Amino acid sequence: MATRSYAIVGTGAVGGFYGARLQKAGLEVHFLVDRDYEVVRTQGLRIDSPNGNFTLPKVNAYHDVHQMPPCDVVIVALKTTQNHILPQLLPPIVKPDGVVLLLQNGFNIEPKIAEIVGEARVMGGLCFICANKIEPGYIQHIDYSDVHLGDYHAQYQPGGISERMIEIAANFKQAEIPVELTEDLMLSRWKKLVWNIPYNGLSVVLNARTDEMMGNPETRVLVKELMQEVVAIASSYNRHLPDDYIQLMLDHTDQMRPYLTSMKLDYDAHRPLELEAIVGNPLQAAIAHGVNVPKITMLYQQLKFLDSRNQTIDK
Amino acid sequence: MATRSYAIVGTGAVGGFYGARLQKAGLEVHFLVDRDYEVVRTQGLRIDSPNGNFTLPKVNAYHDVHQMPPCDVVIVALKTTQNHILPQLLPPIVKPDGVVLLLQNGFNIEPKIAEIVGEARVMGGLCFICANKIEPGYIQHIDYSDVHLGDYHAQYQPGGISERMIEIAANFKQAEIPVELTEDLMLSRWKKLVWNIPYNGLSVVLNARTDEMMGNPETRVLVKELMQEVVAIASSYNRHLPDDYIQLMLDHTDQMRPYLTSMKLDYDAHRPLELEAIVGNPLQAAIAHGVNVPKITMLYQQLKFLDSRNQTIDK
Repeated sequence: MATRSYAIVGTGAVGGFYGARLQKAGLEVHFLVDRDYEVVRTQGLRIDSPNGNFTLPKVNAYHDVHQMPPCDVVIVALKTTQNHILPQLLPPIVKPDGVVLLLQNGFNIEPKIAEIVGEARVMGGLCFICANKIEPGYIQHIDYSDVHLGDYHAQYQPGGISERMIEIAANFKQAEIPVELTEDLMLSRWKKLVWNIPYNGLSVVLNARTDEMMGNPETRVLVKELMQEVVAIASSYNRHLPDDYIQLMLDHTDQMRPYLTSMKLDYDAHRPLELEAIVGNPLQAAIAHGVNVPKITMLYQQLKFLDSRNQTIDK
Repeated sequence: MATRSYAIVGTGAVGGFYGARLQKAGLEVHFLVDRDYEVVRTQGLRIDSPNGNFTLPKVNAYHDVHQMPPCDVVIVALKTTQNHILPQLLPPIVKPDGVVLLLQNGFNIEPKIAEIVGEARVMGGLCFICANKIEPGYIQHIDYSDVHLGDYHAQYQPGGISERMIEIAANFKQAEIPVELTEDLMLSRWKKLVWNIPYNGLSVVLNARTDEMMGNPETRVLVKELMQEVVAIASSYNRHLPDDYIQLMLDHTDQMRPYLTSMKLDYDAHRPLELEAIVGNPLQAAIAHGVNVPKITMLYQQLKFLDSRNQTIDK
């Protein structure tokens, strides 16, 4: 098995954590860094983690994709709100037989990437991780680090388990990152959206942590109803989630420590919300199939209002 | 026409304003005052208004209903969240042939009053007024002062224009309060709820003024969709609002000065929200008739969460 080289586009909590783990496991990793470039270039990366703290005093840090070598696997760990810059970033850094792996939340984000690098070179992944960037180059890993990976095929058609999926998974496992491979990336995306849409959305609208939403009987029902709408959209795309899946998500959230969602953290920092990827695109998917989702619609309308106002307030 | 005596239960902005106007017009008025009793007893009432400022240095102020004389018309101008105390307050102050006039927002609040004083002695009214209590006994009237009045009949059955409606209207007109009489109190309540449910509800959930909601295309649509749900509930009760009524409300709101709703003011002051009267009871009315109102439901769920948390936060 040839050794694969990795590029990390977006060295925040997610990109920084996974990239650092891959480098620590002996793989060749190149980090594209935006605001934190000077710090990461001179001081490297520091990871605090319940699985062991470590520091990488020297990493390959870049501020310009044209200085980077083309890589086998380009991991995109930007917020989806930054995806409009990918047409400039990706072409120089993906090898001809390389692949772009989107480690991002949301729905229908792969097609745009396929337009840039071609359908055959797109993979999607979902991260189940609690991690925060505390300072430039300094990431606090709190819990979980699982990644679900799959090849993207046109219109999210399911496919098999490819050789490259197995090889990338092997690299991740070498880096102590638990991996699950999916033959059906769309199903994986819907599964994650069942959690992401209600909790991310309501956390912003209601200024609330997960435990607060679960602790109030009215919002508990609302969370469940929003999940049911997501399940209904998925069904209309022939992705049928297990009957107990919603209950599983609710139970899981009950057991989580009080948690502020990533969308809420973005909101509080006056960053643009990942609203289109996480709520808008699923809503469009519902509309395209004539699925009635009034509560997701209302959530989207409320978030659009709040996001828009939040961007015009002094930061 | 016999001169009617008036009791005002709740001397806030609404009760204080209308009571003061009635007294100024020469009518006998008795004010039940809660927290502001000492100030109102010693200093009377002061009204600033575009129609002319005036002061009533001496008013009949009471802190205890048992000190008050029974009156012909008992105007209830409390927040509906206080209506649970009315079984104690009303019986001593309504004359045997007197009437209780509820100047409150919401739906299905009259039946409880009918249980206290009997169906034949209940009237409902809706105020179209912008006024704030600035200090104890000091009310700033900003705009409008119209009142729509009607007799209550069991299950909101429509009735005619009664003698007492005409006489009370005459007193109000004498006090320069524009009055409209309604034969169908339920229709009047639904009409007001078309405005109140979306704007009051969303103003709290989105922390927004009316002009902000109208200025954003997404919330503008959401307001309209909530109005459509209110119209649908009304229709299921055979109250058919004019086709252009929603557009009329939207246009009217576009022309209003930026406005913080009363529910928002209550929320910001950590007072309990008039949630059941304004949203919960209409929602129950929808459920009773099998009308699907997902957006009003979601609004109610969100407001219940916010109201509950708002009451547990230090004031």
